[in-house]
Parts: sequence; C-alpha cells; structure tokens
Amino acid sequence: MRDEEKYTNLEEQLLYLQKLLDEEDTAALSELFTELDILATARTLESFPTKTRDRLWEFIPETLLGEVLAEVDEDIRADYIEDLSASDVEQIVKGLDAQEVAEVLDVADEEIKTTVYASLDQEIRAQVENLHSYEDDVVGRYMDPETVNVKQGVSLEAVQRYIRIHHLLDDESQQIMITDKDKRLLGTLTLIDLIKQPQESVVDEYMDVPFTLNDQMKVSEAAALLRSKELPFVPVCDSDGLLVGQLNAADVLEITQDDADMTLKHMSGVSDEEEVFTPILRSAKSRGIWLGINLLTAFLAAFVIGQFEEVLDQIVALAILMPVVASMGGIAGSQTLTVVIRGLALGQLAGNNKQWLYNKELWVGMSNGLVWALVVGGISYLWFNDPLITLVITLAIFVNMSLANLSGVLIPLVLKRFQIDPALSGAVILTTVTDVVGFLSFLGLATVIIL
Amino acid sequence: MRDEEKYTNLEEQLLYLQKLLDEEDTAALSELFTELDILATARTLESFPTKTRDRLWEFIPETLLGEVLAEVDEDIRADYIEDLSASDVEQIVKGLDAQEVAEVLDVADEEIKTTVYASLDQEIRAQVENLHSYEDDVVGRYMDPETVNVKQGVSLEAVQRYIRIHHLLDDESQQIMITDKDKRLLGTLTLIDLIKQPQESVVDEYMDVPFTLNDQMKVSEAAALLRSKELPFVPVCDSDGLLVGQLNAADVLEITQDDADMTLKHMSGVSDEEEVFTPILRSAKSRGIWLGINLLTAFLAAFVIGQFEEVLDQIVALAILMPVVASMGGIAGSQTLTVVIRGLALGQLAGNNKQWLYNKELWVGMSNGLVWALVVGGISYLWFNDPLITLVITLAIFVNMSLANLSGVLIPLVLKRFQIDPALSGAVILTTVTDVVGFLSFLGLATVIIL
Repeated sequence: MRDEEKYTNLEEQLLYLQKLLDEEDTAALSELFTELDILATARTLESFPTKTRDRLWEFIPETLLGEVLAEVDEDIRADYIEDLSASDVEQIVKGLDAQEVAEVLDVADEEIKTTVYASLDQEIRAQVENLHSYEDDVVGRYMDPETVNVKQGVSLEAVQRYIRIHHLLDDESQQIMITDKDKRLLGTLTLIDLIKQPQESVVDEYMDVPFTLNDQMKVSEAAALLRSKELPFVPVCDSDGLLVGQLNAADVLEITQDDADMTLKHMSGVSDEEEVFTPILRSAKSRGIWLGINLLTAFLAAFVIGQFEEVLDQIVALAILMPVVASMGGIAGSQTLTVVIRGLALGQLAGNNKQWLYNKELWVGMSNGLVWALVVGGISYLWFNDPLITLVITLAIFVNMSLANLSGVLIPLVLKRFQIDPALSGAVILTTVTDVVGFLSFLGLATVIIL
Repeated sequence: MRDEEKYTNLEEQLLYLQKLLDEEDTAALSELFTELDILATARTLESFPTKTRDRLWEFIPETLLGEVLAEVDEDIRADYIEDLSASDVEQIVKGLDAQEVAEVLDVADEEIKTTVYASLDQEIRAQVENLHSYEDDVVGRYMDPETVNVKQGVSLEAVQRYIRIHHLLDDESQQIMITDKDKRLLGTLTLIDLIKQPQESVVDEYMDVPFTLNDQMKVSEAAALLRSKELPFVPVCDSDGLLVGQLNAADVLEITQDDADMTLKHMSGVSDEEEVFTPILRSAKSRGIWLGINLLTAFLAAFVIGQFEEVLDQIVALAILMPVVASMGGIAGSQTLTVVIRGLALGQLAGNNKQWLYNKELWVGMSNGLVWALVVGGISYLWFNDPLITLVITLAIFVNMSLANLSGVLIPLVLKRFQIDPALSGAVILTTVTDVVGFLSFLGLATVIIL
C-alpha cells in the first residue's frame, strides 16, 4: 500500500510528503528518503519551496547526501553548500566519483575547494582537477574519466574474466574500449556482443569503428550530433587521438531538452534558472530586468503614436482599433520566430534552406495577412461604417503581418550571426518591430489618406 | 577528409548534401546515405523542404528504407506512404521488427493496412496487432514486445550460453527478465551483472526488484515517472502482472523533451507538428486558426477601449500611453504563466504548494508592479507634465501587473482542472485578461479621476 502511494506519480508523492511534514512524522520521512533512489530524491527536493526544502535535507541519509547534491539543480546545490564548512564538504564528497566531486566543488568557494582538493585521494583528485581544467561548455567537463580498456587480440572470454577479477564495469559502462599501448582508441565492443558472440573469438572481430567526440567540442554541438546517433555512451578523445573518457549521451541530450525549455523561458522573459520554487526576491529581480527592457520598447511604441497626435485627436476610432493592428502583427511574427529559433537549435538552417525559408515565410505572411486584413476590414466597416478607416486598417494589417513574418526569420538569423542568443532578445526586438511598424503604418496611412 | 566533412556537424552536412544535389552527383549521394546510420538519415531528411526531400528519398538504399521511415517525423512518413501501393509497403516492412512495422502502418490507410497485415509472418503480425490494440497515448503502444526471459535458479553461465545458442539480445536489450512459468515478472538482471558477477551463481542472487510500468499507463505519466529514475529500459506488465514487453526510456523521455518544445509552440500559436520545413499551405492554415482566435481577443480589447470614446476624445495622451499599460501587464503575466506551466508539466504543483505559489506571485507582481508603476509614472510626468494623467497611469500599471501575476497562476490551474492543455489556450486567455484589465483600469480610472 505505501509503495503504491509513493510510486504512482510525483504529484501524489508530493502530497504524501506534505502530509508527513504536517504531522511531523520524522520516522516515516527518514524511511521514505532511504527508499527513494537518488534521482527521485533530487526531483522531490526540487519540487518544494526553499523553506520546506531546508527541512527535508535533514531526512536524507548522510551516505546519500553527496550523490543527491551532485544530482539536484545547481542553484539548490549552491544554496546548500553555502552554509557548510570545508570539513562538512570533505565528508560529503567521500566515496563520490570524480564527476560527482567536480559537480559539488563547482559551486563551492575557492577556499573550500582548495581544502577539499587536498583531502581527496590522489587518483580522484587528479581526475577532478582534470575535469575542472575544462571550460564548462565543452565535452571534457562532463565526461566520465573511467573506462574499461583492453588490448587487441584478446578473446571475449579473457575480457569477461579480466572484468570479474578486477571488479570493473560500474553501473554506467556500456562498452569496452580497445586501445593500443599509448591509449589510442582502436574500437569499441558493446556488452551485448561481449555476451552473445562466440567466447573464443578475439575482440578485433566484433569491435565497431568508434564514433568519438573531441574533448574540446562544445557541449551544444555534441548534443546536436548525438541527436542523430543511437549511442548511449560515446568515447571522448583529446586532440592527439588518445582516449580520455566517455560521455553519457543522456547527460548531453538533457542539455538539448533544456534547450527548448530555455528558449521558452527566454522568449517569455524568464531567466534560465527560474523555477516555480525560486524565492520571491530572486524572481522579482530577474523578471524586473526584462520588464525594464520591455518598458523601453513600450515607450518607443508610445513615442511613435505620439507623432500622430493630430490624427488621433480628430478620429477616435483610430485609438480604438490601434491594438488590433499591433496584436495581429505580434502574433504572426512570434509564430515565425518560434519555428525559426527551433530550426536553428536543431541545426536545420544552412545554405539554400535560408532562402527557401524567407520565401516561405513571406508567402505565409502575405496570404494570412490578406485573409485577416479583409476580415478585420469587414468588421471595422460594420462597426464604424467608414470606408476610409476600413481602407486604412486593411492595408495596415496586411503590411504589418507580411513584415512581421519576414522579421521573424531575419531577426534570429542576424542575431545568430552576431553570436547573440536569438531566443533571449529575439522576442523583444520582434515585438518592437511589429509595434512600431503596426502603429506607423496604421496611423501614417490614416494621416495620408484621411486627413 | 570526406568523413570529416560529413561528421563535423549537421549544418555542414546539410551544406555538403546541397552541394551534391546541385552538382547532381548521384553516386556520391548514394554513397553518403549508405554510410549514414538510420537516425542520421532521418534527421537529415527532416532538415529539407518537401521538394528537396522527395529527391533525397531515391538515394536511400532500399534495405534501409523501412527503418528510416519508422524513424522520421510522422508527417513526413505519412507524406511518403501516401503515394505507395500496398505491395510497396509490404516490401518496405519486410525485415522490420514489430515496433517499426506498427509505426509505418500507423500512417497508412485501412485498405493498405489490411493487405500488409495479411502478408506479415504470423509472430510479427500478432505483435503488431497487439501494439495497435493500444490507444496511442499509452505505454503499451510504444513498448518492445520482445524480451529475453529466463527462469529462477539458473546460473549466470547458463544464461550466457542460452543467449549465444538462441542468438538472443538485440541491439536494444539491456536487461534479462526473470519470470515464472506464467510469465509473471520476478526480477531483472542487468547485462553488467551478468558479466561481472561470479558465473556459477544463480540469477536470483543478483536480480533487482523491478520497477515496472502498467501497459495502460499514459505515456506522459510514464515520462514524468522515468524522469526520476535512472533506467534505460523498463519492463511493462499488464493488469494481471504478466510481462508483456519493455519500454525504452529514451523513447518516452523524448516525449517529455517534446513537451517543452510543444509548450513553446502552443504558447506562440504554432501547432505541434509545425517545423521549419512544413509546406507553405499547411503552415498558413494551422497558424491562421490561431490568428483568428487572437483576432477575437483583439476586438474584445478594442470593444473595451470603445466604451471610453468620450475620455479618449478629450485627452489624446491616453491613446498614446494605452499600449504601455497593456504591454507591461502582458509581459508580467506571461512570465508567471511560463513558470507555472513548466511546473505543472514537471508535476511539481500539488497541495500546499499551490497556496504558496499564489502568495509568491502576488508579492512578485505587487513589488514589480510598484517599482515599474513609479517609473512609468515618472516618465509620463516628464512627458505630459500632467499630475492627473501621471496618477492614472501609475495606478493602472500597479493594478494590471498585480492581477496579471495572479492570473498567470490561476488560469493554468483552472484550465488543468478542466483537462484543457494550459499551454494551448493559457497564453491567449491571459493576454485577453491583461488587455481588458489594462484598458479598463487605465481608461476607467481616467474617466473617474480626470473627467
């Protein structure tokens, strides 16, 4: 029964946890966290506001604390580590592998880092220092430095015995590396082949020509490459072609997954790190910046409107219809922007494709622009019964929607060329363009045609 | 050299392909597709407009065609299958496993489906029919019906020999299922343990208590569960507890990945299926629907403004400042909406957390509202030098931003209760609310205070 309660889904698990917290049932809480696995514990901690989370930390068994810390969101990890002494951190990283130690120390201050480094056993320490020597956007930073390496000419049976004698293969290994004496990678053998192929045959017969990644490759590039491979683990080599570790593809693909999430947040003016449970002050601050930027563009639009005081003063219907022009352009533009930004993230836009895309979006913009311009014109005519106003709004909507679609392609491509993240500033630039073009064309045409 | 060219990244690969197409170098094209693996071929096809894609299909080796079809986006698969005869499809599905056949037949019409069913070998056919008997949003639809099953009490050595003799373990197997004579699942054994543990010991000693999924569970629910487990493959059981297949967690997590992508698209008014290379007509149509819905809300806002003709007619500054109020409320609301929708998708919002969230967003809304209301008020005063207009816009921004944040929480939670996807309609409802509240408070206050 209790097992059921815990495993049906995260939501029910959260409710169960809240109940235990309300009843202060510390025994059941400790038991729960002993039974949950590392990932489940991490996701659970991420699903509570800071205050409750601070209460939950106490119930996590000390032996699991390090692994849980390595797994939770960086912000949460930093919050927790902040209050600890160097000796606390030393205690926590005991028994962790190099990758996990590197994650934990990443958020510690320099003083603690130095002290903890000194306390590590020599092999782990060298591995951690090596991981930390990489920039944090390259493959080397995220690889597992431990691999199972064998020489050419060895039989499958011998490989299996070698693994058993030396207690090799941790939970994350999925392949055997075949290397020469300099650690140059010659091939890889899957565990499946190691089991299913005749045991007397040698590794050379079944090894695959490995697809490898360079340790200095950008993680985002690696993610784009791995999306088109069915490889759970990829060997990582340095620029001399020597094997330095292996990359868990799932870790890297998580970054692409975050990518859509990040685009969504950027386009809505929310910072990367913000989650439901980000504390009030931090949320208010990070969103405030975006609101400030938006204010500039809103006042730019207001300034444009201000140039047409005369016509607005005479025809109040223009003030009433103004938001319709801006809104239709804004939606049309952001539809295009979203599609283009996703295409860029997936690496689909190269060469001729761009020209094709401009043409496509111009046609989509013009055809939808035409249809909706006529609809809006019709409604406006029924409302105000004024052919000139009808003409003005019909033209303005057509112009604004066509240009909105073109801007939706142009803006992200130009931003990318200047190495600026199109998701971050694309939406605000686009809105500025559609607002300004919308008001300018609508009120400008009104001035020319009606006044 | 040529290998380098192909593998550096998708973008360069696309350029290389375009070059070959331009030069009509059919030999190199055929060679390229022979060397690319299935996933890479699928991703490449997805990265071209329909016309170019139709040319590329010819260069894909016939033996790979079926697997490539099973891998590409559903839309593209449907487009390709549409033009084929039943005997073409029969040819294509030859040699595919049940999962792949099911994918391909999913997009075929009933007549072709029936003909191809009849041509399948009996075992595959039974498996395909079983997969098709599931709804397309449940786990059973996406599982691999083939698993490697052994009985209790067997030694590891015997399991290895059994696998070799019967040529078991396909590329996707990662675990051995231990079942009783009724196929009830008793435990699972990883390939790692099968290799590294003493070979004379029996499977019982090293088998794990399996975490299983029910075949009727919703895929989205399964994805939420698997996010907190480190399991590459999960056994699937029916409601009697009998083993019916295994689920590749990566397949399901791709759906969660798509989830952020889908949210992004929905919030920007783009349909799920739309990609950069969706043909013009299809894009225009699917975006048109959203533009139509938006038009209703834009006219609702215009109608609200229309109620205040009198005050607008007298004070033109109001028309100029109107968009600022709506825009600040819109941004503040969509920041909140985005965070809440992601929280809902991750299953983080349950019980007390909701109350906490209302409080948080009200505070964030009010504090940011206060700050930016004062800033806007200050700028407006400098611009129009009118204390009453300043008072009106300051109050209106404060009210609109505070309510916008509350609506950002309330709207998705209410939609979710009514089983409506909050990403799909949340953004448009929210904009309607912030526009209407913004114009109503701004122009309403102006009428009361100034007139």
